[in-house]
Amino acid sequence: MRVRNRKGATELLEAHPEYVVLDPESAKGHWQEIFGNKNPIYIEVGSGKGQFISGMAKNHPDINFIGIDIQKSVLSYALDKVLATDVPNIRLLWVDGDALTNYFEAGEIDRLYLNFSDPWPKKRHEKRRLTYKSFLETYQAILPSQGEIHFKTDNRGLFEYSLVSLSQYGMILDGVWLDLHASEIEGNVRTEYEEKFSSKGQVIYRLEAHFPE
Amino acid sequence: MRVRNRKGATELLEAHPEYVVLDPESAKGHWQEIFGNKNPIYIEVGSGKGQFISGMAKNHPDINFIGIDIQKSVLSYALDKVLATDVPNIRLLWVDGDALTNYFEAGEIDRLYLNFSDPWPKKRHEKRRLTYKSFLETYQAILPSQGEIHFKTDNRGLFEYSLVSLSQYGMILDGVWLDLHASEIEGNVRTEYEEKFSSKGQVIYRLEAHFPE
Ligand SMILES: C[S@@+](CC[C@H](N)C(=O)[O-])C[C@H]1O[C@@H](n2cnc3c(N)ncnc32)[C@H](O)[C@@H]1O
Ligand SMILES: C[S@@+](CC[C@H](N)C(=O)[O-])C[C@H]1O[C@@H](n2cnc3c(N)ncnc32)[C@H](O)[C@@H]1O
Repeated sequence: MRVRNRKGATELLEAHPEYVVLDPESAKGHWQEIFGNKNPIYIEVGSGKGQFISGMAKNHPDINFIGIDIQKSVLSYALDKVLATDVPNIRLLWVDGDALTNYFEAGEIDRLYLNFSDPWPKKRHEKRRLTYKSFLETYQAILPSQGEIHFKTDNRGLFEYSLVSLSQYGMILDGVWLDLHASEIEGNVRTEYEEKFSSKGQVIYRLEAHFPE
Repeated sequence: MRVRNRKGATELLEAHPEYVVLDPESAKGHWQEIFGNKNPIYIEVGSGKGQFISGMAKNHPDINFIGIDIQKSVLSYALDKVLATDVPNIRLLWVDGDALTNYFEAGEIDRLYLNFSDPWPKKRHEKRRLTYKSFLETYQAILPSQGEIHFKTDNRGLFEYSLVSLSQYGMILDGVWLDLHASEIEGNVRTEYEEKFSSKGQVIYRLEAHFPE
């Protein structure tokens, strides 16, 4: 997703320290204090305009959610959603998913979501895919033993790639859905991209997998 | 696939010992002698009417192929195909896939194919699915370390199940195709079911996976 620079995005993010953690390095190891409780923490890497993460936070008050995105303007739209949702168990970070170990201690995050990640279809861009092995290493470093990744996408090539990449990394599949909206699954919160692509008639793929011990 | 009893199926099978191994227990450990060479041996479990296995045998003269099916009448139709194909590197067995260790030594088979296996959609029939863990154990017992399974199906539920079942068993995915006929893949030999379902517009799923060391 490319969005235009949003005028005033920086000011908006800076005006809401209750939701936006602007100095995430110093939060490392202190996320329980930031949330003010010991509930599990789930993160979405590439949270876009924030519909999923704010919907999840609303539906699961006993879980803390962190949405991260690399694009400042996109994150500012997520902040609009978060402000409208008005729940305490959510934070936003303007950071790159490849640097998560700068912001989280080993095991500090309990689950990681990837939704409609950029597909980077060209082989020479493989390393940019959020399910490439270097990203998996980073995720593993902040998750507990047997920590889980939940991933949705409409992109066939990226899903095929990800199944193989996770498996070759040593991850174990716990569930696979090859037409999510035709399956019975409770509590699915749709993302912006999910609504867009499924209204075009495309199937939505989903997987759950965990790291080895 | 249910087929009617074919009159004369037994006689037809018995009349062609050059292709049909009617006493497979005594073949155990002797498959190189039976084929008269040391080429790799690939097996298809549930080979149906034999289009895949005879097509593969024709395309790969340096590999030996064995088609097995539990239904005698079905196997007799496969024999028709094999007779028409007229190549030396193929054999047929009328046996159950759950008893492969009775007919093959450890490591005697180099690769195993499953094509359009019966889906057994009801949870209480899970144990009958050819990708259920007890079948995987049997396959592992006759394959070498890191031996491969190649699996195709049109059935979404069975494919979802199989990805998870193989992964939970410890197998590692080497390739996944979620719309085989839309993908560039060389040398795909279509099965009877593959032609039937793809002509109805259904996508064909495929995976390659290997056992751990
Ligand atoms: C295609 S959008 C999907 C947004 C949302 N998850 C959805 O499903 O509607 C992908 C998002 O991932 C973000 N992104 C891409 N690479 C990233 C990275 N390395 N770290 C963090 N976010 C990233 C992009 O900025 C974009 O907002
Ligand atoms: C749906 S048909 C598919 C046939 C063929 N592979 C194709 O793709 O056209 C499944 C076949 O598997 C055979 N089969 C089912 N269970 C089996 C078992 N346990 N051992 C061997 N064959 C079996 C059936 O008899 C049937 O011929």
